[in-house]
Amino acid sequence: MSTEAILVDLAVIFALAKVFGYLFERFGQPAVIGELLAGVLFGPHLVGLIGHSETHEVLQELGAIVLLFAVGLDTPLSELKAVGGRSAAVGASGIVVPFVLGFGLMKVTGAETSEALFVGTAMVATSVGVTARVLADLGRIREPESRVVLGAAVVDDILGLLVLAVVAGSATGDLSIGDVVLLAALAIGFVALVGGLGASLVKRATPLLDRMGEVRVFTLALGICLALSAAAGALNLAAIIGAFLAGMAFAETRDRYKLEERLTPVYSFLVPFFFVVTGTLVDLSVFADPSNLLLGLAVIVLAIAGKLLGCGVAAAGMGRRSATIVGMGMVPRGEVGILVATIGLTSGVIGPNLYGIVVVMSVATTIVVPPVLTSLFKARPVATPARPSGAERHTHEIEGIGG
Amino acid sequence: MSTEAILVDLAVIFALAKVFGYLFERFGQPAVIGELLAGVLFGPHLVGLIGHSETHEVLQELGAIVLLFAVGLDTPLSELKAVGGRSAAVGASGIVVPFVLGFGLMKVTGAETSEALFVGTAMVATSVGVTARVLADLGRIREPESRVVLGAAVVDDILGLLVLAVVAGSATGDLSIGDVVLLAALAIGFVALVGGLGASLVKRATPLLDRMGEVRVFTLALGICLALSAAAGALNLAAIIGAFLAGMAFAETRDRYKLEERLTPVYSFLVPFFFVVTGTLVDLSVFADPSNLLLGLAVIVLAIAGKLLGCGVAAAGMGRRSATIVGMGMVPRGEVGILVATIGLTSGVIGPNLYGIVVVMSVATTIVVPPVLTSLFKARPVATPARPSGAERHTHEIEGIGG
Repeated sequence: MSTEAILVDLAVIFALAKVFGYLFERFGQPAVIGELLAGVLFGPHLVGLIGHSETHEVLQELGAIVLLFAVGLDTPLSELKAVGGRSAAVGASGIVVPFVLGFGLMKVTGAETSEALFVGTAMVATSVGVTARVLADLGRIREPESRVVLGAAVVDDILGLLVLAVVAGSATGDLSIGDVVLLAALAIGFVALVGGLGASLVKRATPLLDRMGEVRVFTLALGICLALSAAAGALNLAAIIGAFLAGMAFAETRDRYKLEERLTPVYSFLVPFFFVVTGTLVDLSVFADPSNLLLGLAVIVLAIAGKLLGCGVAAAGMGRRSATIVGMGMVPRGEVGILVATIGLTSGVIGPNLYGIVVVMSVATTIVVPPVLTSLFKARPVATPARPSGAERHTHEIEGIGG
Repeated sequence: MSTEAILVDLAVIFALAKVFGYLFERFGQPAVIGELLAGVLFGPHLVGLIGHSETHEVLQELGAIVLLFAVGLDTPLSELKAVGGRSAAVGASGIVVPFVLGFGLMKVTGAETSEALFVGTAMVATSVGVTARVLADLGRIREPESRVVLGAAVVDDILGLLVLAVVAGSATGDLSIGDVVLLAALAIGFVALVGGLGASLVKRATPLLDRMGEVRVFTLALGICLALSAAAGALNLAAIIGAFLAGMAFAETRDRYKLEERLTPVYSFLVPFFFVVTGTLVDLSVFADPSNLLLGLAVIVLAIAGKLLGCGVAAAGMGRRSATIVGMGMVPRGEVGILVATIGLTSGVIGPNLYGIVVVMSVATTIVVPPVLTSLFKARPVATPARPSGAERHTHEIEGIGG
């Protein structure tokens, strides 16, 4: 494609993202779903208004990087440490059960091991953003169930990214045990080193950063985000893991330098490219094949059941209704599931059929949650919403831009 | 290039831009020059750390679009109307003389008419940003000469973009008189329609915009900027003309919706790609050829003489020293000259030799001005700098991000 044609595409993508995002927000749905749908409808598989090129892919990746950087900025290490054993248990159990269900389903249907690993990984992911947004919209962010869900979602995010790092890394070569161990060691080493030291390095550099001024600190943080993303990519990990860790490193000084405030316009510009371009890769015609339709339904049912069971059991001590709320709160896969699917597709491990199925699963689990959570909470009085938590504030600012 | 390799390039480009920009600011030079130099040094022609791909070109173009949008935001139509006859005369005369000199020089040396038109056009451009920045740094922004220079630079910018629109459009086909007239009509029509109606449409929409809220207005402005850029490109005009007109349309409501404040992080992220990638296209080895070196020196001398003469004569009524200050203030070609050269190179009208010469001319005219203006102003007492003008505020905010 010529530079001019790509420019026209970018203008069309941006406009569609904002219009569809706005319409979906009007109908009480996350803007994200509108952006995805715009891609599905106007991409090459249906209307054909949006094309595809190397630049589309790079902007998709840049959007994902900015998105995960923003999520990282909302995940201070101290909050992670403060999360009780229950959140950790819910998070861990919410990873194991869906992964085993997804992997098992795929193996039963005769898929390759690498394909099964990817589907399992996509079913692991919890979208903190969507969950926090729904809880905030319901005015329930301070309820005990919400705290457990938010804490567990963070644990889940990190463990999920670790699983993704191993699976994505192992996908590029043969699946020898030695390679997997090496990759796991590399992934754990990278995450532990950057995740563990990043925040304290930034904290120690505070006098220096203060002298640099807010604007330069933002530039530095953005540079570190790009550098760690490139480094993660060079290590065969997903680039977004580097972006997430860069965000985490600055999470505790987020407010001091107004990093989120400055990131918002960049987010508003780049992140829609991730969702719309992602949508353009979905080919709904795969569901014309009854066996794909059946597999898709099975994946969606197991994705919901996996989190409800895995997380619900770990939260059983809170009582039946609360455990159901916690389990349901963990169901949305949102952008994280789509990220996993996109990495699987672009690395050639999964084909367009599985890609379409995983993306539809991610969207379906995201749409189903708000009405169910609303009715589960209905019997209880509303707690007064006070100062919003980090995650809530983040999604508020970010989503406010959607339209 | 693979997406991973491009990602590494983007991280390298961003880091180099910020480090070189910071170093140049430390030594009292505009950050822009450091960014350009980083591209020249680390591009494929010298060190070879930065590669080239379709994505590099699109990000270069996006950077130019954001840059010209920002310049447009600082060019309210009302200020244009308030500019007296002197500024208009200085601006117009400052376009005719350098254009004739540049075109004449090229024709004398036996160049093609289309090449001569491009070099002439590149010599027309005045970089409002650099000029305003230098005057602000000297604390002289409120002096009468500065007001004339800023007003003339705005006139110059619009007429220059119009010349560019005609030259760039005519470059794509044969140079028939009918085509040129049609293109000029198209360019003038587009500029007059969007430039003339844009601001009043935005003004009339104020009640609606107020209800939308600041964040959505920013998104809308960005969308209009992309759409008008794509539209200008589709009309065979330079995309940046659309971006500039979009900025102008929102210039009067700039402060009401904090548009500049929100644009700054996007600017800080994308504009460096324009300058660094532009730098990577410069091949300094063209100056190893003595005839190129000679031509380059001639272009630089005429570029300086053209503005000094053209603008100085039109400002002669202000006295000799003031006229020299005005003429000198109009000398920097900065990013606008480079934009013209880049459009000429990518459209295939000028080759790498002329491209290198025009870029070096743009940089040289930008570097030479600050020390000369400083010594010209030295004999006079400093006026107290009050509330900065639009252009000054803009460069302050924007350049503050350079390091």
